[in-house]
Amino acid sequence: MEKIKTVAIIGMGLIGGSLGMAIKNKDLAEKVVGVSRNIDHLKEAKEKEALDEYSIDPIEATKDADIVFVSTPIAAIAPTIKTVCPTVKKGCIITDVGSSKAEIVSQIEGLVPDGVVFIGGHPMAGSERSGITAATKFLFEGTNYILTPTSKTDKEALKRLSGLIGQLDVKLSVIPAAVHDLAVAGISHMPLAVAVALVNTVCDTKEAKDVMLELASSGFRDTTRIAAGNVEMGRDMFSTNKKAVLRMLREFKASLEKLERLIEEGDPAKISAELEKAKKLRTDMYAA
Amino acid sequence: MEKIKTVAIIGMGLIGGSLGMAIKNKDLAEKVVGVSRNIDHLKEAKEKEALDEYSIDPIEATKDADIVFVSTPIAAIAPTIKTVCPTVKKGCIITDVGSSKAEIVSQIEGLVPDGVVFIGGHPMAGSERSGITAATKFLFEGTNYILTPTSKTDKEALKRLSGLIGQLDVKLSVIPAAVHDLAVAGISHMPLAVAVALVNTVCDTKEAKDVMLELASSGFRDTTRIAAGNVEMGRDMFSTNKKAVLRMLREFKASLEKLERLIEEGDPAKISAELEKAKKLRTDMYAA
Repeated sequence: MEKIKTVAIIGMGLIGGSLGMAIKNKDLAEKVVGVSRNIDHLKEAKEKEALDEYSIDPIEATKDADIVFVSTPIAAIAPTIKTVCPTVKKGCIITDVGSSKAEIVSQIEGLVPDGVVFIGGHPMAGSERSGITAATKFLFEGTNYILTPTSKTDKEALKRLSGLIGQLDVKLSVIPAAVHDLAVAGISHMPLAVAVALVNTVCDTKEAKDVMLELASSGFRDTTRIAAGNVEMGRDMFSTNKKAVLRMLREFKASLEKLERLIEEGDPAKISAELEKAKKLRTDMYAA
Repeated sequence: MEKIKTVAIIGMGLIGGSLGMAIKNKDLAEKVVGVSRNIDHLKEAKEKEALDEYSIDPIEATKDADIVFVSTPIAAIAPTIKTVCPTVKKGCIITDVGSSKAEIVSQIEGLVPDGVVFIGGHPMAGSERSGITAATKFLFEGTNYILTPTSKTDKEALKRLSGLIGQLDVKLSVIPAAVHDLAVAGISHMPLAVAVALVNTVCDTKEAKDVMLELASSGFRDTTRIAAGNVEMGRDMFSTNKKAVLRMLREFKASLEKLERLIEEGDPAKISAELEKAKKLRTDMYAA
C-alpha cells in the first residue's frame, strides 16, 4: 500500500495525541499535522512527537490532508466537519472518533461534498486520565477499533483508511453504525447503568446498608466495579448514545422481570433454565 | 471458656464436614459426633478427621450433645430439628447453617422445648464443589459467619455458641434474621439476578449479539462473572430467600428507572450526581 502523505488530526487530547504518536512512531505518514485551539497543547504534542506541524486553524491544516481524524469532544465533531469539508481536497477521507455513531454518520454523510468521503470511527481505547499529557503511542495496541461505513461509502476509501488503522495493532471491526451503537450500549453502557443502580440500591436500603457493607465480598465487588469509574465518561456514554442505551435498558428490565416472575412462581426447573442460559453464554464468551 | 464436651453435626456435606474438620483440628470439643444417612459419607468423614464417632440415627447421636449443628440441605433443617429437639438434653444449643434465616427462626423458635436453645446461623462459606469430598478445615477462615438470635434467645447460650464459632477464624456478626435476609439478598442474590439478566439480554439482542461478544471486554466480564457460577446454588438462593430477593429486586428496578429517566431527560448534572453517589459508596466499600 502506498504510504499516506498527510494526516491531519483535529483535537490534540488523549485520543488525538495518541493517534499522532502511534502514526509517527510506526512511520505511517509522511507528515502529521495537529490542530488545537490551545497552543500549549500543540507545543506539548510537538514535544511528545505526536505531530510534525501544527496549526490553530482547522481549514488551513486540513486543506492538503489525505486523511483527517476529528478527535474533538463528541458535541464538536459535526460542527468541525462542517467547517473543514468544503475546503479539503478531492479524495480526502474524513473520520471521527466519537463513541456513538448512528447520529453522526447520518448527519455528516449528506453534508460532505462529492469526492470527499466520511467514514465513522470509534477507537475503543481510553484511560482514566485525559488530555495530551496522558497520550501514549501504545494507547490503541490490542484494543478494538470500529469503522462504520454505509452502503454509500466508497470502497477504495474504506480500504485505504482500514489499511492505516490496521497498522496500529488494533482489532479492526467494520460494522453498521446502528449495530455499533447497540453493541456498545449492551456491553458497556447498560452494564454501567446496572452497576450504578446496584450500588445505589444498597445505599438506599437504610435498615440493612451497614450490614451489607460489612458482608459484601468478591461477588458484589466485581459486579459493581465499573460503578467506581470516571463519572464524566459515564455521563457522556449515557448522553451520546441515549437511544441505544434506553433500548438496551428496556430489554434488560424485561429479562430481569422474567427472572423475577420465575422466582415469584418458585419453579426450580424454570429458574435453573434461566441461570443455565446465562452461564452457557458467559462461559463461552470468556472461554477462549 | 470451658471446653465443649460433645458437638453433634447432622449432615456430612461440604459445610458439616468442614465444620467437623475445623473443630477437631483446633481441638475445640472433646468429641465430635457426625450424622448422615449415607454410611459411605460417614466413613469418608472419619478418614478426613471430620468426626470422632458417627451414627445414622440423629436422635441417638444428639442425645448427649452440648451443641448441635444442623447442616442438612435447607428444606430438611426444620424437620430435622423437630425430630431431635424433644430428646436432646437440657441446655443443649441447636444451630443451623441455612442461607436464609427469618422463616427458619420463626418456625423453630416456637417449637423447641424449654431449656433447649435454637440460634439461627449462616456460615457464608462455600465452594463450587460440594459433599464431604470437598470439605476442608480451612473453609471458614476469613469468611463471614452470622448468628441471628432473637429477643427471646438465652444470652449465656449465645455467648457459648459465639465462643466456639469465633475460634474458627471467622468474622462473626450477630444480627436479626430479617436484616440478614435483606443483606444477603442485597449483596449476593440481587447481583446474581442482575448479572444473569445482563447476559441473557445480550443473548437475546439478535442483531447485535455477535458484535457484542466480539467487543465485550473487562467491564462486561467483571459485571457478569457471577452469572457463570454454580446453577444449583443460584437457584437455591432465589428459592430460600424469595421474599427478601423480590423486595431488593423491586428496589433495584426503582433505582434503575430513576437513572433511565435522567438519561431520557438528558440533564448531565443530574446524571453525574447519580453516578457520583454510586462511585462514592463503591469506593468507600473497597477502600480497605
